[in-house]
Amino acid sequence: MRHALGIEYDGSGFSGWQRLKHGPSVQAEVEAALGFVLDHPVDVTCAGRTDAGVHAACQVVHFDSEAPRTPYALRQGMNSRLARSVSVLWAMPVPDDFHARYSARARRYRYRILNRAVRPALLREHLTWERLPLDAAAMHAAAQALVGEHDFSAFRTVHCQAPHPVRELQQISVVREGEQVIVEVQANAFLHHMVRNIVGSLLPVGRGERPAEWVGELLAGRDRSVAGPTAPAAGLLFLGPRYPAAWGLPAGVSLPG
Amino acid sequence: MRHALGIEYDGSGFSGWQRLKHGPSVQAEVEAALGFVLDHPVDVTCAGRTDAGVHAACQVVHFDSEAPRTPYALRQGMNSRLARSVSVLWAMPVPDDFHARYSARARRYRYRILNRAVRPALLREHLTWERLPLDAAAMHAAAQALVGEHDFSAFRTVHCQAPHPVRELQQISVVREGEQVIVEVQANAFLHHMVRNIVGSLLPVGRGERPAEWVGELLAGRDRSVAGPTAPAAGLLFLGPRYPAAWGLPAGVSLPG
Repeated sequence: MRHALGIEYDGSGFSGWQRLKHGPSVQAEVEAALGFVLDHPVDVTCAGRTDAGVHAACQVVHFDSEAPRTPYALRQGMNSRLARSVSVLWAMPVPDDFHARYSARARRYRYRILNRAVRPALLREHLTWERLPLDAAAMHAAAQALVGEHDFSAFRTVHCQAPHPVRELQQISVVREGEQVIVEVQANAFLHHMVRNIVGSLLPVGRGERPAEWVGELLAGRDRSVAGPTAPAAGLLFLGPRYPAAWGLPAGVSLPG
Repeated sequence: MRHALGIEYDGSGFSGWQRLKHGPSVQAEVEAALGFVLDHPVDVTCAGRTDAGVHAACQVVHFDSEAPRTPYALRQGMNSRLARSVSVLWAMPVPDDFHARYSARARRYRYRILNRAVRPALLREHLTWERLPLDAAAMHAAAQALVGEHDFSAFRTVHCQAPHPVRELQQISVVREGEQVIVEVQANAFLHHMVRNIVGSLLPVGRGERPAEWVGELLAGRDRSVAGPTAPAAGLLFLGPRYPAAWGLPAGVSLPG
């Protein structure tokens, strides 16, 4: 029987989502708690792997188990077992053909930039600091060149293992909220480091060092080596995947039906 | 010559503001960095002491020094020396009769409650968790009984060293923002644990266990032992003091002139 979980985590103390031989991973933490609650070893499959220091508001995973556990018992059992930096938001049974990764039609990320003269003391693991004044409207305008189905090689790390570099970027916005500049982006899927590399190329536009057209030129050039540097992990939050409403998942991870 | 500093800090790793023989304090951290930058020992006086685990968006301190340092050099020098959990937002010279504590006419605090079934993983050092549904409107209505000049003995810890229990509570609001319930309160000054004790007595009203009138009755009864428990430190943020505009301090800590 297949189950899905919605999971919130603080990535600060982890080497990332994926289980590793060395270093703590969110996946290992989740699988250990789940193995305890189910009383058998279990592998979970996630909607989108996150890097070291990246947080998640609602990662989604699926796993198979015949152990009789109610959704409530699963959630409560895991939350009493998990590290304080990980919590299970919900658990539910899903059809056997649901797949946390392949059934997702979109993923959303948020990137938070603290834009002021002084480095952050509060929430510093959840912000990236930019001391030079940013023009959020210019960044927003520049980012619109990325919307649509494109070859995103310019924003793909060399370590990316995806078979091809084409993704459909569905929506991107850059807005200022007081001292913060917030980037939100949705795509069908993302290449490795794609959000951080996009932010790294929006920052020079925001600082006025590059014209707004530059981002579209980078995209067209498909050359990672001339685009901006990878922005730090700390500002990045995986808001979560989005599935077709027919799967009946909670509203926060469902597309409008 | 007298100087003022605006200071942001994450209280998670500190035993509180006040210098102690044992345990790290924000005050000791600030004084060590300041002593290094000024090249002489220095005592700072703050606007309002905060307890262990309580954060500050803008604590204000003053100190005296004849060392010739520009505000910029003071700020930058301290920020390169301070722990990452503390940052100096601004530095400025002030008249000799300015006093961080006695010149302040008001202090503001914010208390953040995460109100959902599942404990927080993200921002868990900045939230207090309440699993039962809270009626924020009922909490707001109940809190209005506290506005005005009153004897706040019902919300004062036995360890409070203030000479008298009368304070003027100028403003209090309770609003819901999605899964969070946020309490903001402003008074001329606060007794020890006063904000956390007020929140601890608003929570039973929010859960429907006590009527809204209960909070006013507690106030009138002046008996700490029958009021709600002290709410946890993690949800509390000292927004900062407010000074008369004539001192010429930054807008965030000045009253409307």
